[in-house]
Amino acid sequence: MGAVLGHNQYGKAETRVVRVYRDADPHEVVDYNVSVAVVGDFAGIHVDGDNATCLTTDAMKNTVNAFAKEHGDAAREPETFGLALARHFVTDVDPVHRARITLEMYPWRRLHPHAFARDGGHVRTATVTYDGHDAWVVSGVTHLVLLKTTDSEFSGFLQERYTTLPPTHDRILATSLSASWQYDRIDMDFGTAWRAVRRTLLETFAEHDSRSVQHTLHDMGEAVVRSVDGVASIHLVMPNKHHLPIDLSRFGLENRNEVFVATTEPYGLIEATITR
Amino acid sequence: MGAVLGHNQYGKAETRVVRVYRDADPHEVVDYNVSVAVVGDFAGIHVDGDNATCLTTDAMKNTVNAFAKEHGDAAREPETFGLALARHFVTDVDPVHRARITLEMYPWRRLHPHAFARDGGHVRTATVTYDGHDAWVVSGVTHLVLLKTTDSEFSGFLQERYTTLPPTHDRILATSLSASWQYDRIDMDFGTAWRAVRRTLLETFAEHDSRSVQHTLHDMGEAVVRSVDGVASIHLVMPNKHHLPIDLSRFGLENRNEVFVATTEPYGLIEATITR
Amino acid sequence: MGAVLGHNQYGKAETRVVRVYRDADPHEVVDYNVSVAVVGDFAGIHVDGDNATCLTTDAMKNTVNAFAKEHGDAAREPETFGLALARHFVTDVDPVHRARITLEMYPWRRLHPHAFARDGGHVRTATVTYDGHDAWVVSGVTHLVLLKTTDSEFSGFLQERYTTLPPTHDRILATSLSASWQYDRIDMDFGTAWRAVRRTLLETFAEHDSRSVQHTLHDMGEAVVRSVDGVASIHLVMPNKHHLPIDLSRFGLENRNEVFVATTEPYGLIEATITR
Amino acid sequence: MGAVLGHNQYGKAETRVVRVYRDADPHEVVDYNVSVAVVGDFAGIHVDGDNATCLTTDAMKNTVNAFAKEHGDAAREPETFGLALARHFVTDVDPVHRARITLEMYPWRRLHPHAFARDGGHVRTATVTYDGHDAWVVSGVTHLVLLKTTDSEFSGFLQERYTTLPPTHDRILATSLSASWQYDRIDMDFGTAWRAVRRTLLETFAEHDSRSVQHTLHDMGEAVVRSVDGVASIHLVMPNKHHLPIDLSRFGLENRNEVFVATTEPYGLIEATITR
Repeated sequence: MGAVLGHNQYGKAETRVVRVYRDADPHEVVDYNVSVAVVGDFAGIHVDGDNATCLTTDAMKNTVNAFAKEHGDAAREPETFGLALARHFVTDVDPVHRARITLEMYPWRRLHPHAFARDGGHVRTATVTYDGHDAWVVSGVTHLVLLKTTDSEFSGFLQERYTTLPPTHDRILATSLSASWQYDRIDMDFGTAWRAVRRTLLETFAEHDSRSVQHTLHDMGEAVVRSVDGVASIHLVMPNKHHLPIDLSRFGLENRNEVFVATTEPYGLIEATITR
Repeated sequence: MGAVLGHNQYGKAETRVVRVYRDADPHEVVDYNVSVAVVGDFAGIHVDGDNATCLTTDAMKNTVNAFAKEHGDAAREPETFGLALARHFVTDVDPVHRARITLEMYPWRRLHPHAFARDGGHVRTATVTYDGHDAWVVSGVTHLVLLKTTDSEFSGFLQERYTTLPPTHDRILATSLSASWQYDRIDMDFGTAWRAVRRTLLETFAEHDSRSVQHTLHDMGEAVVRSVDGVASIHLVMPNKHHLPIDLSRFGLENRNEVFVATTEPYGLIEATITR
Repeated sequence: MGAVLGHNQYGKAETRVVRVYRDADPHEVVDYNVSVAVVGDFAGIHVDGDNATCLTTDAMKNTVNAFAKEHGDAAREPETFGLALARHFVTDVDPVHRARITLEMYPWRRLHPHAFARDGGHVRTATVTYDGHDAWVVSGVTHLVLLKTTDSEFSGFLQERYTTLPPTHDRILATSLSASWQYDRIDMDFGTAWRAVRRTLLETFAEHDSRSVQHTLHDMGEAVVRSVDGVASIHLVMPNKHHLPIDLSRFGLENRNEVFVATTEPYGLIEATITR
Repeated sequence: MGAVLGHNQYGKAETRVVRVYRDADPHEVVDYNVSVAVVGDFAGIHVDGDNATCLTTDAMKNTVNAFAKEHGDAAREPETFGLALARHFVTDVDPVHRARITLEMYPWRRLHPHAFARDGGHVRTATVTYDGHDAWVVSGVTHLVLLKTTDSEFSGFLQERYTTLPPTHDRILATSLSASWQYDRIDMDFGTAWRAVRRTLLETFAEHDSRSVQHTLHDMGEAVVRSVDGVASIHLVMPNKHHLPIDLSRFGLENRNEVFVATTEPYGLIEATITR
């Protein structure tokens, strides 16, 4: 029976490049994890073992590193760094028809003109895709771990044979938020927009009167598309980091919603897209 | 500006259930990590905070656990366990329109009638989706770490400004294979088919005269769709676990392709689908 | 041939307890990972299978959870929480002769009176040991990731057959610091002392004119024992998170100490104790 | 107040070297993660920033790689590879007084004369220390994940205020075993001894009538020191990978010790040394 090569792509994952801007005073630093994936005229590589159209993944790594120097201004923001890279691969390397650059940017907090501490509270992300005609930019954040100690309830849910959860009117709500959002144009001030989205997500989470993770997720997304200029849609993923109240009555103690076990196994996983 | 709820789904991730079959002699054991995701009539939960259509993720966990007992025969294989669960959620829980069950099955090797050692060499996977009419079953394997010490070259590749990799005619090829494949029907003997696919992947990897990771990946996929009855298509993902020859000439030693550094940063990542 | 039971201990690891102080306004929250290990009269458990002296590890978990309520004031700091727990196990449970409590405390940053974001930049630690007579308190910090872009050199090192590293007079110095220190008494204001140690470590790292990781590590430790009242000794562990300058001359570019690969494989690992 | 440099050591961690023996037919492969730590005359490095006695950690990495070629026979076993390295650092590098080499060896299963699959079921370890006079060899195994479905009970344990665990007379016992053992000499056939220890551990675990994790751990260690020639003592660490029976009666089902949740949070942690 015949076999047909379908969709295929390849690239270099997790190039870890750090760029220091030494002419800035004080020094500035950006810290990236960059992954490249390309689609193109690669059937011969797979079927015939003919590598003539194969841009090596080693060259992709070299390109990422070189662009941190050659396109130093673009490299200050993940979105513009990704755009420069994606356009290069499609424009300058014939067999490449489409390129997708995925970037994680690790935040550093300044301690001193030349010294920094890693701010572990989140990772900024961007995914940039270019096909020779259009470019798509998706910005995001991951590992934003949030918790609220009240203003969260979960009740009135569907009852069936396997439902045993008691309703609760005051629980801890905690999550490790991942969000990604698409802009309606690419000539943005991406840094300013990113900070506005993060601020809106944090404020809405903090102030929301939550009936469920879904309810809070929705209102966080709605606030972003309503209030941050240029955001066309946002996708949010919120694992429910369960904090379960512990029964202390066995030890003659009353747990007035004060002591919780933080558990990760298993976990609710909620996701949705909100569009303007 | 208005905001519209788009695609949304939720579920319970990573329910870790172990089933022992005690009436078997010797005892048998299956060990699963089951994730459930559902799509349905959930707009009210998000927009209005109305949980009337919300099947709790806790109930999903309970269902997975209960089905390991109630549907003990189905639970012997991940595909049939997933089918039983997916059909239940769509059929028995009104607001659920579509369910996707993702299963990891951890292999245990028998030591003794009642004792086992975890065989860490791979994880068997299955993803089952049901929408009330059709069911899709995708079987797979992950973490299958393979290495060959010869019969692998990489040369004749595209040259451009950032290409510095020297060609090689005898290198180590190593990967951590993930494969997933779709059957053309669902009344399969899934266990037998799974073992045939794995055997074919291993044999083709071992015997291939490789011109690139893409070339080997393609021929592994082609061998599966050609030789394993019922497989309609297969998707393979093969990170290139680079083993780089070390320059020992600085120490007056000749490295005749014998000493390598195993590095994970960064890595080539190759993927393709092969269809019958 | 005979066999003799030597040193043995057991306990419950990684009890994840969260305590909310609701009578505080705004709410306060502490988040712990607590591990208990005990030594005592346990030979019969091992040798004869006689559990009469066996405090269950489940009871240790219950105790940690209950103490977060019963000893709520102590639970505000890891050192005092650990002291309460260690004293309880030795004093109240006959077969236990010595208890060691190891605590990780995860920091949260306030967003709002009732909402918090996890501050991922470090973990506060404490290890408390009690033997019925004496108590030892070791405080610490881990995952404090630091980087300086200049004022770091490494040259003049020993030359032998396998030494090929070029000397450098201006390199990036980066580490993920773990430090632990012992106090000369246990009636401390542990929170204030902890913050003073961390501040001293950060300031010394930032301002140091580094000849090696060892040199910086030493001066950080020396600054702590000299300037923070009550610290008798400090142990520092500093992996060298190598940032290697990338040769861009192959692409016609000059890398003026601006572009680096951040690599984790392999890494230098430096540790020392500094005593007052 | 004065500050004194106490114990200090440094080294290169996690050098990942793979050696292929091509003159063997079929090919053989060994795969190591090697960490080096040295103690010596290093006060000047720390205190004065004088690197004259500093063997670079880069040179340590080079040495590990070069020895995989120069001492190819020694590199077939982790113990002999470690001995060659430890002796070199102390003997040939003046300021080094003591060296400790820690090795992980990853097992590969042969598929074909030139192809292998990683056998993920365990890691073989060795720690070798040399001080210029004596050498100590500790062999070991980690990540040996074991489970038995019966012949395990836990009852008759101490009762106190926080004890709520019900006794059980038939439970699942599961662990991820780490063991390390010391030989009474260093002119051993280390590979043969290693296999004998592993076989003894597995057989004793499988056949033991367990009253507790401690009880099984003890009898496993006792069997090794009694039956494997040359083993002077063994240290075992056994986390209790709890498998808790699930209450299915809420769903009208009877769980006859058949369905379990596998949980990792928190876990019992048991360790002991057994000496001959």
